[in-house]
Amino acid sequence: MDTSSLASRVIARERRAIAQAITVVENDMPEAAALLHELAPKLGNAYRIGITGPPGAGKSTLTSELTKTFLKLGKTIGIVAIDPTSPFTGGALLGDRIRMQEVSMNAGVFVRSMATRGSLGGLSSKAKDAADILDAAGFDLVIFETVGVGQSELDIAKAADTTIVVLVPESGDAVQAMKSGLMEIADFFVLNKSDREGADQAVSAIKTILTFRITHAENEWIPDVIQTVAAKGKGIEAVITEIERHKAYLITTNTLISKRRKRDRERIVELVEDLLRINFWSKERTDGLEEKLNVLSDKKTSAYAVAKALVSEFGKK
Amino acid sequence: MDTSSLASRVIARERRAIAQAITVVENDMPEAAALLHELAPKLGNAYRIGITGPPGAGKSTLTSELTKTFLKLGKTIGIVAIDPTSPFTGGALLGDRIRMQEVSMNAGVFVRSMATRGSLGGLSSKAKDAADILDAAGFDLVIFETVGVGQSELDIAKAADTTIVVLVPESGDAVQAMKSGLMEIADFFVLNKSDREGADQAVSAIKTILTFRITHAENEWIPDVIQTVAAKGKGIEAVITEIERHKAYLITTNTLISKRRKRDRERIVELVEDLLRINFWSKERTDGLEEKLNVLSDKKTSAYAVAKALVSEFGKK
Repeated sequence: MDTSSLASRVIARERRAIAQAITVVENDMPEAAALLHELAPKLGNAYRIGITGPPGAGKSTLTSELTKTFLKLGKTIGIVAIDPTSPFTGGALLGDRIRMQEVSMNAGVFVRSMATRGSLGGLSSKAKDAADILDAAGFDLVIFETVGVGQSELDIAKAADTTIVVLVPESGDAVQAMKSGLMEIADFFVLNKSDREGADQAVSAIKTILTFRITHAENEWIPDVIQTVAAKGKGIEAVITEIERHKAYLITTNTLISKRRKRDRERIVELVEDLLRINFWSKERTDGLEEKLNVLSDKKTSAYAVAKALVSEFGKK
Repeated sequence: MDTSSLASRVIARERRAIAQAITVVENDMPEAAALLHELAPKLGNAYRIGITGPPGAGKSTLTSELTKTFLKLGKTIGIVAIDPTSPFTGGALLGDRIRMQEVSMNAGVFVRSMATRGSLGGLSSKAKDAADILDAAGFDLVIFETVGVGQSELDIAKAADTTIVVLVPESGDAVQAMKSGLMEIADFFVLNKSDREGADQAVSAIKTILTFRITHAENEWIPDVIQTVAAKGKGIEAVITEIERHKAYLITTNTLISKRRKRDRERIVELVEDLLRINFWSKERTDGLEEKLNVLSDKKTSAYAVAKALVSEFGKK
């Protein structure tokens, strides 16, 4: 594969090239590193938005409604969906699917879903690679949609400039969100399905929980709660206004640069660990493991000792 | 620390020693490997049960009710709770906490909660280490309680002899479970809160979804659905009967051994990857990363190239 030519076509925003490039990273193809290296000079122009929340909060509906409104504002949008409960990734209700298809047919939108099941831990890395490809392709916005439970899913949602946590007015949803680590990653909240009973109380509950986060530092960003009814298109402009307000805050306080630097650091750490794993599990070592399992089942050694022996013959300190 | 003496005290089931041993693995202390190596000859006697499901399904209540019933049957029980929404890990409703405390005060029970937040990916490994410590301490049963969303949480629940997925009769719960990978890991289902409306329909829905899994192989295990109202202690005996039935199936079909061998393999792979990461990130490499980030922010290289350079000077192929 000619990665140079593929990279040029990605940069020219050819849809087939973008799809092919994401397949290269998704399938761990050997050309992935070269391809992303070619794209590196084009990175950093897209504004990245993470949308997360518990299953059933309406993340996909919000994503598609935001996308429609961004399109009206003349923006182009790349979407990476890593939500197993998302209509993007199949198995959705028919209405949701139709809504998504409407959006994804637009020339200014590119949607890619990535599976969480069966992934060998590299999904978070691959999702960020996909976002880089969309960034290099010149999309103004890149949206990550991920379900907000589980560490790797939260890691993806956090890898954005603005992270939005979507909740619904069900009793206890805010408390569950707090416990699962969602409260800490939100730059702001969207209370979706706000036409349901208990919406005002839910907003109060979120704001109360948020007070624990406030440190009274100078220029501190205080997350707000925006109410929407995404399925009816209500509140979408307010969400966009809040994204813009957060972006302006990041720029005026000079934190956009430091946030992205932190993200780069985490990215390299993640890539290093993926590479270590790939380099380590040669056919020889994988085969050797079977023999060692026999010794282990005789209780003559421990999993720790086996692992330590395998690693000690591999790396330099 | 004298790991030999600590190991002996764990094997003698001294509560303080068990707690200390789990702290050793939880905090990545250098003695962890030696300690687990000492305990290795005592492994394999505990029957391991994974209890998972979406937040709010009543996993903790079921766990404590099962524990009470197992105690009456003369069994000892070790519990590893890795559920951020669990009363074991704090932040629960008062009623739940009291129920847990009742159980955990019993001499035949040892409860340990482990946090998911801030963990650097090693949580799954640590949870399994904790289970090994409880196994070596001679508990008849080891229960993992984890929230059933997110890859690493599912991995923990799967690291059991019998994995139970707890659902509630809310509309769509079974469908969400299917999408998040829960259907595939269940040896059987518990439909908790079965006194709620829609319980019978939910059982049918689960069974319908399950038919997709059936391969009609000889001696195939077909997961059943057990109805409970854990908060009222209803259906708990039926759950225990089903655990016993599954255990008998694993033994008579000789799959308990192969299942545990597969688990050992996955465990070693996980430990290898934890060790690789720990060995790699020396102070020197961590400091060197900062310099490389400057080059990256000038867009003169890619995260991939940086990671590749770092790794290439480390491992042997």
